[in-house]
Amino acid sequence: MQERKSVGIIGLGLIGGSMGLALREAGESKTSPIVFSRIFGYDTNPLHSQQALSLGLVDECVEFGEIEKCDVIFLATPLDAIIDTLGKLKNIKQDCTIIDLGGAKQKIIASISPQIRKNFVAAHPMSGTENSGPNAAIKGLFYNKIVIITDEEHSGQSQVALAKQIFISIGMRLIKMSATEHDKHTAYISHLPHIISFALANTVLAQEEPQNILALIGGGFKDMSRIAKSSPIMWRDVFAQNKENLLESIESFGKEMLYAESLIKNEKWEELIEWMSKANSLHKFM
Amino acid sequence: MQERKSVGIIGLGLIGGSMGLALREAGESKTSPIVFSRIFGYDTNPLHSQQALSLGLVDECVEFGEIEKCDVIFLATPLDAIIDTLGKLKNIKQDCTIIDLGGAKQKIIASISPQIRKNFVAAHPMSGTENSGPNAAIKGLFYNKIVIITDEEHSGQSQVALAKQIFISIGMRLIKMSATEHDKHTAYISHLPHIISFALANTVLAQEEPQNILALIGGGFKDMSRIAKSSPIMWRDVFAQNKENLLESIESFGKEMLYAESLIKNEKWEELIEWMSKANSLHKFM
Repeated sequence: MQERKSVGIIGLGLIGGSMGLALREAGESKTSPIVFSRIFGYDTNPLHSQQALSLGLVDECVEFGEIEKCDVIFLATPLDAIIDTLGKLKNIKQDCTIIDLGGAKQKIIASISPQIRKNFVAAHPMSGTENSGPNAAIKGLFYNKIVIITDEEHSGQSQVALAKQIFISIGMRLIKMSATEHDKHTAYISHLPHIISFALANTVLAQEEPQNILALIGGGFKDMSRIAKSSPIMWRDVFAQNKENLLESIESFGKEMLYAESLIKNEKWEELIEWMSKANSLHKFM
Repeated sequence: MQERKSVGIIGLGLIGGSMGLALREAGESKTSPIVFSRIFGYDTNPLHSQQALSLGLVDECVEFGEIEKCDVIFLATPLDAIIDTLGKLKNIKQDCTIIDLGGAKQKIIASISPQIRKNFVAAHPMSGTENSGPNAAIKGLFYNKIVIITDEEHSGQSQVALAKQIFISIGMRLIKMSATEHDKHTAYISHLPHIISFALANTVLAQEEPQNILALIGGGFKDMSRIAKSSPIMWRDVFAQNKENLLESIESFGKEMLYAESLIKNEKWEELIEWMSKANSLHKFM
């Protein structure tokens, strides 16, 4: 027996738009336990709403008051806007499930009012691309990717169960952990790599005639600079909300760079080989 | 009218092995101006020679004395071994074309004896993967990639012409520049990104329970750490031979990291957005 629910997505960019596509696809499967009767969208940017509609990311764009009445509400905006939106959700259904998809969790969780804490599930899908906006939304973005659910013991049981069911229906793999752990780990696995990629891009751009350097581009640089194309607004919020962990990770990384630099400066080639061989071993874990 | 020439490849890893595959494929084209009658291979590691044979990367593995007699000799070993090998090439044909495929050029060019300078063409294909050894060799590695030919005015005209013809026949795009420029530019576009990737991998590995962090891996980290799997021996030689340029690039990168760190520490979010937006513009050049 399929259960029919209404769903609303707030923020119709890469993540929210791709969620719309994923939910529709999951709903079309006859074996899916949940079917969303209609996928509603909301974005403060009217252009994004139009694009999302014409790209078929959602069925209908509605006012905030309409979105609030959905059974399930996804929050897929930049992080500061997630906190704002949570403060505005005053008229939700009693058993509503609000799922945020933000990349840092502690500040968001700390901001939520006790009245809706049970309704709220803090999730972070480890998927994305360097592109942003409704045009960046793609089918299959979440498929076979990890989603981290944090501090689930503070969410309502039925809300957690439903959120998990939805993530599984779109092909995701669940991991649970505390928001504290989440923010510490993602500083290293996601936030630091973004800072590095931005810094590498700016290093090359600061040289004389960067176009002559970039004419030589190979696969290594391409990969290392891909995420330097990411949305500054989105990442400002992540960096601000996860400031302490990020600074710690930047410091650890800086030490590795200084160590390598000193080995090269002092021509300690054997130690440099050892250092690189250690890095090679990363791939045993991956 | 097709010209038939013998070719020898010294060093049968990723680059040398892929060159064998590329040359055979090019030779099979009826419109190719050059056909290599037989592709000879040489590797000081007997296991590599066996693997190269059984993988069909070359037609035959021969002694060094045989390789020397080829019309075209590719040098595809790590850089220090390229310099060693150049010192040993005593019995080449008068019009032999020796093409090295190393990733740093000034030291190699400085090492070459005047007797064979005209025979020598210093080339650098901007292609590769993080894997190494004969098993890493792949078809199409060079297709549509850039090859930089450096200091070509010091090479014999017929040697340069032949080298270019070969690179074009395997689908490469030619760029010429001085070895000095090459080493400066590749420090930024290739050598620095490798140091960064090794450093990022080691940063995560130095954390408590890195497996818990790595369980969360997404596309960004995957891309940023891919080249941390690269061969330490090969890269030691590159870093050693391009030491000064590399150190300069590490220093420039370090300044960008420090700048970002200070903006985050001091919560200068508008400036951080500006810094990220500048990095975004990299992709206009790519």
